[in-house]
Amino acid sequence: MDGLEPTGMAGLRNVRLTLQFDGTDFCGWQAQAHERTVQGVLQEALARLLDGERVTLHSSSRTDAGVHALAMPVGFRTASHLPLKAFVLGLNSLLPDDVRVLEARDAAPAFHARFSARSKTYLYRIQNGRVALPLERRTSWNVRPPLDVAAMTEAARFLVGRHDFSAFRAAHCDAASPVRTLTRCEIGGESPGLVTVVVTADGFLRNMVRIVVGTLVQAGAGRRPPSWVREVLEGRDRRLSGPTAPPQGLFLREVEYPESPGEPIFRPES
Amino acid sequence: MDGLEPTGMAGLRNVRLTLQFDGTDFCGWQAQAHERTVQGVLQEALARLLDGERVTLHSSSRTDAGVHALAMPVGFRTASHLPLKAFVLGLNSLLPDDVRVLEARDAAPAFHARFSARSKTYLYRIQNGRVALPLERRTSWNVRPPLDVAAMTEAARFLVGRHDFSAFRAAHCDAASPVRTLTRCEIGGESPGLVTVVVTADGFLRNMVRIVVGTLVQAGAGRRPPSWVREVLEGRDRRLSGPTAPPQGLFLREVEYPESPGEPIFRPES
Repeated sequence: MDGLEPTGMAGLRNVRLTLQFDGTDFCGWQAQAHERTVQGVLQEALARLLDGERVTLHSSSRTDAGVHALAMPVGFRTASHLPLKAFVLGLNSLLPDDVRVLEARDAAPAFHARFSARSKTYLYRIQNGRVALPLERRTSWNVRPPLDVAAMTEAARFLVGRHDFSAFRAAHCDAASPVRTLTRCEIGGESPGLVTVVVTADGFLRNMVRIVVGTLVQAGAGRRPPSWVREVLEGRDRRLSGPTAPPQGLFLREVEYPESPGEPIFRPES
Repeated sequence: MDGLEPTGMAGLRNVRLTLQFDGTDFCGWQAQAHERTVQGVLQEALARLLDGERVTLHSSSRTDAGVHALAMPVGFRTASHLPLKAFVLGLNSLLPDDVRVLEARDAAPAFHARFSARSKTYLYRIQNGRVALPLERRTSWNVRPPLDVAAMTEAARFLVGRHDFSAFRAAHCDAASPVRTLTRCEIGGESPGLVTVVVTADGFLRNMVRIVVGTLVQAGAGRRPPSWVREVLEGRDRRLSGPTAPPQGLFLREVEYPESPGEPIFRPES
């Protein structure tokens, strides 16, 4: 449902929402017939709030089934004059408890949740240990061999910068160009039994973060030297990289847009 | 199923396991006909591992529906000569993914998971904010009014020590004495939006931690002064204390036993 606006919407209000959701029980973001999706349940709640007005929702990202969002921006145009507060409190009273609106803004007319994004940050959580912990199973990937955070950090350094990421895109990726600029790829190992990967880029190819994580884990587990990741990158072939890490460890953490000072915003404060 | 041992079991091996479970989809610890319980699924897995030998499981605590365990000790006597490793890896391959065995020990003949316990520690997690966060909803209680951690800490101090906790026990509590010794009641507020309560005692009455938390929240939200908690304690009447906090924020964190040096132990290390 993402795409360019139909003509004749210039006079409409442009609303931006920030969502959090637990992706476990969703078949991803994008609406699909007969499947429970974040876009589907949000569109349904919006139709009730807007008394039947149908809006087209854009999101910053089309997350896969099982992937979570700490803060995902979405946008839509509407003829409604409801206060911003209603888009937060009203929608939250209509939505199921695995998705919530964290804030609402009146965005500039040109704002588009996907096309206006400057950069996106994802977090990936790895539960590193011989036993797959029940309390972590919905929000992490259990990796059994001990991971060497220093080796993963060394390997991650090869990925930072502007590169052709063809080795890190799914076969069904439909992006026109495989070139992306990674500005951050940080490995965290402070908490015992938990290894995190935080990645920021101007955009991501299909499954890119999950393939990056699957590849870094090969180096972390000592199956490959860190420098192998450079060879994989330069080879530009998906068959060279590691496996795709599973979805439940992945969180969309933040999407950054150009500054928009003075934009009306409603965020319930505690 | 907890209770004193039948006679004639003196020659049997006494095995102690430590479990972690996500309590969301369990009707608590204790086996019940037609309900999914931790004891029920563990007993079933043990019967398969032990090739039909039926054992009686004791646990340190009879947790309620929805309550989690980070590390819950359980014990049973068996005629089996299986290596300890089999009780961890074998059971974990038979158990559903919301419960796992973290370690196994050959305990002393007199060990009993409940009666040998010296103290127990529970953690309670409160997600403090106007929006109930989807990614926290299974493992915390969402409290909307801003909580004053200093006021809760002051209130908690009245509970530490040896007291009659009649005001903090559920109506259906069947403990013979309402006297318990609380050695710790600490409020943590370091992470934004998260307030934790950690409580250690020589034992707990039915729903005691949850009523303590519900009562401390009254002080934290400014509805009552911290000194009110002393009045509640001294009143020894359940009608004086706060509401019972919901189960999904509660975690059995640790149970402490007398030292048992040299006890054979198997714990998979990463």
